[in-house]
Amino acid sequence: MGIRDAISELSPVLGQRLSLSKSDLQEHGRSETHFADAPPDAVAYPESTDEVRRIVQACARHGVPVIGWGTGTSLEGQAQAFSGGICVDFQRMNRILEVSQGDMDVRVQPGVTREALNEELRATGLFFPVDPGANASVGGMTSTRASGTTAVRYGTMRDNVLGLEVVTAKGEVIRTGTRARKSSAGYDLTALFVGSEGTLGLITEITLRLRGTPEAISAAVCAFDTVGDAVEAVMASVQMGLPLARIELMDTQSVEAVNAYSGAALPACPHLLLEFHGSDAGVAEQAQMFGDLAQEFGGKGFDWARKTEERTALWAMRHAAYHAIVAHRPGTKALVTDICVPISNLAHALEETRQHLDAQGIEGPILGHVGDGNFHAILQFDPEDAADKARVLEASEHLVELALSLGGTATGEHGIGVGKLGYMEREHGPAWGLMGTIKLALDPDNIMNPGKLVPPRN
Amino acid sequence: MGIRDAISELSPVLGQRLSLSKSDLQEHGRSETHFADAPPDAVAYPESTDEVRRIVQACARHGVPVIGWGTGTSLEGQAQAFSGGICVDFQRMNRILEVSQGDMDVRVQPGVTREALNEELRATGLFFPVDPGANASVGGMTSTRASGTTAVRYGTMRDNVLGLEVVTAKGEVIRTGTRARKSSAGYDLTALFVGSEGTLGLITEITLRLRGTPEAISAAVCAFDTVGDAVEAVMASVQMGLPLARIELMDTQSVEAVNAYSGAALPACPHLLLEFHGSDAGVAEQAQMFGDLAQEFGGKGFDWARKTEERTALWAMRHAAYHAIVAHRPGTKALVTDICVPISNLAHALEETRQHLDAQGIEGPILGHVGDGNFHAILQFDPEDAADKARVLEASEHLVELALSLGGTATGEHGIGVGKLGYMEREHGPAWGLMGTIKLALDPDNIMNPGKLVPPRN
Ligand SMILES: Cc1cc2nc3c(=O)[nH]c(=O)nc-3n(C[C@H](O)[C@H](O)[C@H](O)COP(=O)(O)OP(=O)(O)OC[C@H]3O[C@@H](n4cnc5c(N)ncnc54)[C@H](O)[C@@H]3O)c2cc1C
Ligand SMILES: Cc1cc2nc3c(=O)[nH]c(=O)nc-3n(C[C@H](O)[C@H](O)[C@H](O)COP(=O)(O)OP(=O)(O)OC[C@H]3O[C@@H](n4cnc5c(N)ncnc54)[C@H](O)[C@@H]3O)c2cc1C
Repeated sequence: MGIRDAISELSPVLGQRLSLSKSDLQEHGRSETHFADAPPDAVAYPESTDEVRRIVQACARHGVPVIGWGTGTSLEGQAQAFSGGICVDFQRMNRILEVSQGDMDVRVQPGVTREALNEELRATGLFFPVDPGANASVGGMTSTRASGTTAVRYGTMRDNVLGLEVVTAKGEVIRTGTRARKSSAGYDLTALFVGSEGTLGLITEITLRLRGTPEAISAAVCAFDTVGDAVEAVMASVQMGLPLARIELMDTQSVEAVNAYSGAALPACPHLLLEFHGSDAGVAEQAQMFGDLAQEFGGKGFDWARKTEERTALWAMRHAAYHAIVAHRPGTKALVTDICVPISNLAHALEETRQHLDAQGIEGPILGHVGDGNFHAILQFDPEDAADKARVLEASEHLVELALSLGGTATGEHGIGVGKLGYMEREHGPAWGLMGTIKLALDPDNIMNPGKLVPPRN
Repeated sequence: MGIRDAISELSPVLGQRLSLSKSDLQEHGRSETHFADAPPDAVAYPESTDEVRRIVQACARHGVPVIGWGTGTSLEGQAQAFSGGICVDFQRMNRILEVSQGDMDVRVQPGVTREALNEELRATGLFFPVDPGANASVGGMTSTRASGTTAVRYGTMRDNVLGLEVVTAKGEVIRTGTRARKSSAGYDLTALFVGSEGTLGLITEITLRLRGTPEAISAAVCAFDTVGDAVEAVMASVQMGLPLARIELMDTQSVEAVNAYSGAALPACPHLLLEFHGSDAGVAEQAQMFGDLAQEFGGKGFDWARKTEERTALWAMRHAAYHAIVAHRPGTKALVTDICVPISNLAHALEETRQHLDAQGIEGPILGHVGDGNFHAILQFDPEDAADKARVLEASEHLVELALSLGGTATGEHGIGVGKLGYMEREHGPAWGLMGTIKLALDPDNIMNPGKLVPPRN
């Protein structure tokens, strides 16, 4: 059997760092959301690109699936081993290899987490802006094309990865991109691997753009009577070109969950959470302009978080919102929708979403990165109740149809994995087939994270 | 013969819009720089995506090369028909299909030029920022991943294309991307086609991001004693995060050529040309900060261009600089280098370049988009003198080696075509082979702009 041979070949190379222990397998087969466990046959903990290369080569030789693993926080079953195989956990490849202050970039190994990276960067006056709610690995974030609260200002992983080192499905080590700010030298392989969810190769190094810590930062919370009002304020600020660093929505249900979980005491109504970055004068000007706008839409005064600790607490609360919502209804599982629409359609999309969920009697607090037109409904269901789950899946599908009809996408940031595979044909039409053609060309034996993202092979 | 059959098949479809006229063929076989003429066998002027699809299908059926043509201003022979075939000139597909003010985007046909687009957008308060020196087509700019003077602030075509319609080598019409600001729905096909120089398919529609016309704009010219001083000022401003909208270098030789060509009267020394965008207060703040910096490096006072007409004249002069330099030495041809390096290496790269050209006795005025670390030396040679040309080619190669050794790229914005094909292996190593694998998968019969960008087929 292929997997046995691969394990025999790799055991002498990795020693203890090739684990077959039950708990290890289990831990690397779980999902953050509602997918059934799907453990791999073995977990490898490589310490170098060369070891990764040897793992991939062994798997290629024996036709064994290879699945990358960062911190396992992806929400669509991306890192689960539905066809078994070897899970490559990058936790031991977590070094920060080179910070260049002059060029504001950093070269890292994929296993470093965004928090560890920013901790390390603190003294340099630079920071890495992309911040999914979880303390995810840079390799995982690159692979799902992650974003977070700051994408409205600083972009997503697409905009912040300059180059990669990748072990291809053939076990070849390639480099993509350069440290120059732009290049027209051929196909944009960096962009091809960003968001490819480990289906084209394993990423062993990432060069990231960094940003200068702003001279001034201020954050604020602003309450609204309705989600509609809050969103009108968002749309107006985006359309007038306010360079907001963060603008996040929590609806009433999310606020209630967060209050209970994080001990906050926000009034039970929709809120926007904001952050402004710039010079002292710039931040004051932005805040003033947003304040005026918010008032037009019935925003109820700013509650400022001027001190660093207050700000940290605010964003910790926001980042914990998903866990807060899940914890609010124990025993349920969650399906997280992730549609993203052109900003002019955001109010409509949110209204339709609320109406549909209410009509279906589905519990679904809404929160999201509304400055990008992206929001999540955390659809909760009883995992023991098949009808309940079916209703939630149907609602998710309805929201995707809605997003597509409004010029948007099924997933703004969480990616495809297996959870959103069923929407790919609808979103992309024949372009999905072209993705399959690329996959077939680069991974002819279908060993790289099989079953995810591209059309199933016949 | 394939081409005869393709022409017979397409003549009834396109009528007069399939031209075999000698002047048409000649015009579509020429190059802006030093490549020998290479006319196609026919020039097609489609008026719809469906006609493009029929052209590609006919060419696929008969194994005939298909080469896209925007305005033919690319500098590396990208649009020339070195293996004959049908040139598809997009000049009749130049409509602006839909402007969305609320979402700040626009959907256009590939043949519209950047100037025509901005003319049309004027009344909307929005503009499209990417501005190569030539009045290029949006389809051509997308295909070469073009940039220009404003990339330092607004990015390149990579950052400003949201989605595409493409006719693939099989003659299938696909759509990539959406109008949402971000998406994690699968491989980034938009990024794959941007910069692919027509080697993977023909682009028939482009959705572009637009920007709001800034409240305030001011431009300035600043003289320096040496290129080194000017570049130190650039590096310092980029590193302190000044959001400059434009920062362009012209060395003494470029200034002399521009004075002669555009009737300017700049002192014969290196200059930076700058533009600031923002609120009134923001622009004043930026200008003040840059002024202070420039002074530290011996910058000689600002000459402000406050009025719109002065500013327009300034950038017209800059955009004409290439023609000015070429016109300055009649009878010569030009090879334009295009290296781009991490900003911290810019001073070193410029110094090395100047020294090498002087040592070789090569005429090579330097100018460029220094805020991105990108600059051009316009290497002039006598086309009748083989040794002269060889010396210039050797110098170009030397500069590429230099850029690569400094973490940069052979081409910041002009692309590969045939002119820089010889540097691809060096820049990308085995990743160039992977580009070839993608090309083979998407265009197995090698009909899309053959001979460009990817490794030659055996
Ligand atoms: C509470 C919570 C909040 C979240 N909020 C956000 C958010 O705001 N924005 C957002 O974008 N996401 C969010 N997510 C989802 C998740 O954090 C992101 O998808 C993240 O990018 C996953 O990173 P990871 O390190 O956990 O990757 P994993 O889950 O371990 O892996 C993700 C995918 O990448 C592949 N992979 C991992 N490492 C490599 C590698 N080195 N080479 C090749 N492939 C690799 C895996 O095989 C898998 O396909 C949230 C998740 C949770 C639980
Ligand atoms: C004076 C001067 C200054 C310049 N300055 C700059 C600069 O600052 N920055 C910069 O980036 N470039 C610059 N250039 C180069 C040139 O303008 C750019 O490369 C531009 O993007 C070419 O656009 P075009 O419409 O002329 O394309 P073309 O030259 O017609 O074609 C370019 C490539 O795209 C392909 N193509 C064209 N249309 C399509 C389509 N619809 N579908 C698929 N493939 C297509 C062609 O086959 C070819 O491979 C300059 C050139 C000149 C002459």
